[in-house]
Amino acid sequence: MTMTRTDGRKRVVVEGISPEVDGGRFPAKRTVGDQVCVEADIFTDGHDAISASLLARREGSEEWTEIPMRPLVNDRWTAVFRVSELGRYGFKVQGWVNHFETWRRDLLKRIAAGSDANVDYLIGADLVAQAADRALGADANWLRERASVLRLSEAPKDLRTHATDPMLHELVTRYPDRRFVTESDRELKVVVDPVRARFSSWYEFFPRSTAAESGRHGTFADCEKRLAYVAEMGFNVVYLPPIHPIGITYRKGRNNTPEAKPGDCGSPWAIGAEDGGHKEIHRELGTVEDFQRFVAAARELDLTVALDVAFQASPDHPYVREHESWFRKRPDGTIQYAENPPKKYQDIYPFDFESDDWAGMWEELKNVFFHWIGMGITIFRVDNPHTKAFPFWEWAITEIKREHPEVIFLAEAFTRPKIMYRLAKIGFGQSYTYFPWRNGKHEITAYLTELTQTPVREFFRPNQWTNTPDILTEFLQMGGRAGFVIRLLLAATLGANYGVYGPAFEMLENRPVRHGSEEYLNSEKYEIRYWELDRPESLRDLIARVNEIRNSNAALQSDWSLKFHATDNDQLICYSKESEDRSNLILTVVNLDPHYTQTGYVTLPLDELQIPLDRAYEAEDLLGGGRYLWHGPRNYVELNPSRMSGHILKIHRRLKVETDFEYFL
Amino acid sequence: MTMTRTDGRKRVVVEGISPEVDGGRFPAKRTVGDQVCVEADIFTDGHDAISASLLARREGSEEWTEIPMRPLVNDRWTAVFRVSELGRYGFKVQGWVNHFETWRRDLLKRIAAGSDANVDYLIGADLVAQAADRALGADANWLRERASVLRLSEAPKDLRTHATDPMLHELVTRYPDRRFVTESDRELKVVVDPVRARFSSWYEFFPRSTAAESGRHGTFADCEKRLAYVAEMGFNVVYLPPIHPIGITYRKGRNNTPEAKPGDCGSPWAIGAEDGGHKEIHRELGTVEDFQRFVAAARELDLTVALDVAFQASPDHPYVREHESWFRKRPDGTIQYAENPPKKYQDIYPFDFESDDWAGMWEELKNVFFHWIGMGITIFRVDNPHTKAFPFWEWAITEIKREHPEVIFLAEAFTRPKIMYRLAKIGFGQSYTYFPWRNGKHEITAYLTELTQTPVREFFRPNQWTNTPDILTEFLQMGGRAGFVIRLLLAATLGANYGVYGPAFEMLENRPVRHGSEEYLNSEKYEIRYWELDRPESLRDLIARVNEIRNSNAALQSDWSLKFHATDNDQLICYSKESEDRSNLILTVVNLDPHYTQTGYVTLPLDELQIPLDRAYEAEDLLGGGRYLWHGPRNYVELNPSRMSGHILKIHRRLKVETDFEYFL
Repeated sequence: MTMTRTDGRKRVVVEGISPEVDGGRFPAKRTVGDQVCVEADIFTDGHDAISASLLARREGSEEWTEIPMRPLVNDRWTAVFRVSELGRYGFKVQGWVNHFETWRRDLLKRIAAGSDANVDYLIGADLVAQAADRALGADANWLRERASVLRLSEAPKDLRTHATDPMLHELVTRYPDRRFVTESDRELKVVVDPVRARFSSWYEFFPRSTAAESGRHGTFADCEKRLAYVAEMGFNVVYLPPIHPIGITYRKGRNNTPEAKPGDCGSPWAIGAEDGGHKEIHRELGTVEDFQRFVAAARELDLTVALDVAFQASPDHPYVREHESWFRKRPDGTIQYAENPPKKYQDIYPFDFESDDWAGMWEELKNVFFHWIGMGITIFRVDNPHTKAFPFWEWAITEIKREHPEVIFLAEAFTRPKIMYRLAKIGFGQSYTYFPWRNGKHEITAYLTELTQTPVREFFRPNQWTNTPDILTEFLQMGGRAGFVIRLLLAATLGANYGVYGPAFEMLENRPVRHGSEEYLNSEKYEIRYWELDRPESLRDLIARVNEIRNSNAALQSDWSLKFHATDNDQLICYSKESEDRSNLILTVVNLDPHYTQTGYVTLPLDELQIPLDRAYEAEDLLGGGRYLWHGPRNYVELNPSRMSGHILKIHRRLKVETDFEYFL
Repeated sequence: MTMTRTDGRKRVVVEGISPEVDGGRFPAKRTVGDQVCVEADIFTDGHDAISASLLARREGSEEWTEIPMRPLVNDRWTAVFRVSELGRYGFKVQGWVNHFETWRRDLLKRIAAGSDANVDYLIGADLVAQAADRALGADANWLRERASVLRLSEAPKDLRTHATDPMLHELVTRYPDRRFVTESDRELKVVVDPVRARFSSWYEFFPRSTAAESGRHGTFADCEKRLAYVAEMGFNVVYLPPIHPIGITYRKGRNNTPEAKPGDCGSPWAIGAEDGGHKEIHRELGTVEDFQRFVAAARELDLTVALDVAFQASPDHPYVREHESWFRKRPDGTIQYAENPPKKYQDIYPFDFESDDWAGMWEELKNVFFHWIGMGITIFRVDNPHTKAFPFWEWAITEIKREHPEVIFLAEAFTRPKIMYRLAKIGFGQSYTYFPWRNGKHEITAYLTELTQTPVREFFRPNQWTNTPDILTEFLQMGGRAGFVIRLLLAATLGANYGVYGPAFEMLENRPVRHGSEEYLNSEKYEIRYWELDRPESLRDLIARVNEIRNSNAALQSDWSLKFHATDNDQLICYSKESEDRSNLILTVVNLDPHYTQTGYVTLPLDELQIPLDRAYEAEDLLGGGRYLWHGPRNYVELNPSRMSGHILKIHRRLKVETDFEYFL
């Protein structure tokens, strides 16, 4: 252990900093305008007073912004900075012994005890003189003068007045003695994403299923027409499954049969054909210009288009010819297709991330993103990222976001927990979750608490989906219309980011390919579907109402304030969210039972929620339109699934009473 | 992000390693012979099988010992290594994709499905041939031969037999393909201390209070005679307050009065006089030779002598003359004494750790330890380490333990939690705790759980004291004899390290200097006390019995197995400890009420404790001598404080029944 002369006198300890992901190995995540609340354990030996600062900067900038930290309890200190721009920020923490503060604190005690002596003021004079040496301009002169007053004055009353002058305190504090400052080990990082990374409402549809009449392959022109329908429902992200040429070799038939019949359109995830691969557009959807017109039309409606990036190749993908080394060769000269023995997926060649030309492959795969970014795409839903090498993602996302910090990557991973979290750490800005399979009150509470109330939230942003083309849950299969309503309400109020796969969702599509499967019957993955969007059972109006509530209540646009509240009925779940400034408080109550009316009492922690204990408050149901006058912590709820499975209640904390009116006086 | 050609193909992730203190900034702690159970999250993309190894070495050695890791659940892997020598060890974790294992796993599935094809064996042949290239000698030949069998054989039955041969599996596993191995970021460290750091029974006494007759200053010769008394009680550490010359200037009188009367002996913590300072011996105690004889006599009785190191100086300390710059000067030319305004401690000068000559001071203070180590001292109880700079301790302890890994430092700190833990992280091998003030069942359970069942235990080793010369708790003041018994039983069974300050403890000394104070009346800190050790109320026999139980039951010699068990009476606390091999199981039940008999049922988790559910077991009271036949999880306990406030029960898990005897057959 070698130490320079300065080291030994750095008496302050700075440790336990948060946010810090894996000891600083990964950045924490925020969105534009968020605050970063930094905490650290800071203390020194003995009884000296200390001071601490948070230093923050945009990555690469030479200029640090300094924010004084304030003590909480148990030697924990805090300060906050706001991230106002996209990109990366860095921060660090400094702590130092503050001899002036120690002197001042002790002097006040001495004065109180009447034991202040001349030497105490001489000590103070020295400290003030030192501050003067560090100070600038008029401050320096003022301090120097005050130092000589403390040194020369003989009247105890004068000494006391001058020594405890708040102005003196303020000026000395302005020029701290940081000769022996302790700085945190490393600069910690924060990635700042667009607001849509925190608050987004996704609508997925298959572009080929958008034709106005049955039997025709939809085009981007049809998609353009579909946009109004999506926008009217209040979504802000439109996500399309892959739009690239679809392979012919080993093409899958309807309902995932191993052999396609003539006319079968194949799975859009079998990417690549004679027409091209990941940078080309499936001919039947239209041209590049059609696509660009679609993207522009979406933007007009404040809809961001999200593209699917699935890094795998059909046997017909040009990569297979042009970059043989990117795929694993078998000893018989054939290329290794995807397998889960004994199942074979011969229509798909995975990339070999141990390829000798891995660097060239990385470059090309990264360029796929750049290609679409060039066409105005800023959100990518990445298919099965956990079957590609983690180092690739970390590199690619870092490289892409360096030039395009506005880009958001959603990880389509439903794999083991450590892997889900790793993908988030290495750069994915949103992730699918286990939410589709969390139906009981206890499991919803436990899972959402883990996601939103533990350090996981620093790097993992959940996106809660009701369904996907691969996931028609048993709850949806069996719960009837109320089942769909329940999952919609939960997803949209638990998840500031949420999504539905439509029109299957709003059209209440609930038939699995067979009992026990989560695959849709006649799945759009393998065939074109024609949707009659105007059928009366459609949930589109409810979805529109829910999204309108989300769009107009800041409380629902972030997950960090989520709190679950007690109910005396296990089928009733109750939770609240608040806006950062606490002005907007939304309480959601859902009847998790799709079959029966459930009643019970919800109990709210009024203190925590800043609801007055001594007067009534209003719970305004933004969903059903009712207005309830509530009193105290316990209030009755009754939810009939044949009418509406939940309340989304806006809490008006303070109702007027007689004393609020002029005529009371 | 720059990457070398190899990096990109390191597909395995290694994270979340334990033990790891503050991301590896500090070492974990063990004692000689302990095991280090290492865990890590290890996984890769996709579905390939992986392998992982733990690599361990003594610090500085070039040779790593490799131990294969095995998977637990949730992508967590584990392996264990033992630390057999004093000093520092390092370890790291490696993970890699195991293509042979993937192939073998998938082949078994294919064979089961009858879908194994020739190409599968060709792939295997290539993998085996690659292993042959990595293998040595006969193994290489064997593998090469097996590769050609897999390549050339045409009989499916033969292929299956050869491919799934366990010998093939074993040999390929012996030569793993680690081209793209992922290694944990840094080598993590473990400090290995002597066993006494984990298991020690401390007895503190004032050497000057050991004279055989009242009124005389005790000497090391008297101390030598006192050793048999201490050894008979079963302690293994004898700790002496400072033995150095005591200052005269501002010497404190009896009961801490500000002015000493003629003949008052002063506080041994006011270190330094004309005769010398921290390296000299107080003249009235004897000579260096006397001291060395005392240390040797202790060693004969397997008692380790622990010295007090209190880094502060009386105004008469030679340092004050010789190293003025080590103390803070006031503007009036006087030296700054210790203060807690408005209180003044003019008999004590603290060292100034911001001294310009801090490096010289560090060197000298370190040499104080080396001086006493040279006299055979291996345990130091460090007085108020938290009022000296943390970087000093980290440096000094590291330097000292590099040459003398056998040395143990006990931190005498009763300060804020973060500071207590920091001292442990930077090197203190034991620490005083808040135990003296934890008297209720809930608070004992919560505190001991934090100390022994959380990652805190990796660096913080508690030493539980019943009392100290500064701490006569209100519980002891008010609890009568049973109060002392309760605290003894708790300390000695909750703490593998524990201590008492005697003879005040065993003589039931419970008078405070005044109501509301924790200071002893007529404290030995300021005067010589004469103790009549043979008085009948002495607890020496009970202490001897308790220490004998500790010495003969491995379960009580470590804290990590501590488990609290339910009782239906809040005055009854129940907990168990087991030896590492689980052969020794000790259950302690204490009546926390010093006044009244308490009865109730204790409930044991029989499964966890490996007690058979279907037959009786024996609870043998090592303290009271009773033997109880217990059945099932719930058993009755009754403890009368006027007789004995606790049971220390040795659990004999298996009692013989008729089928255990030959004549049953």
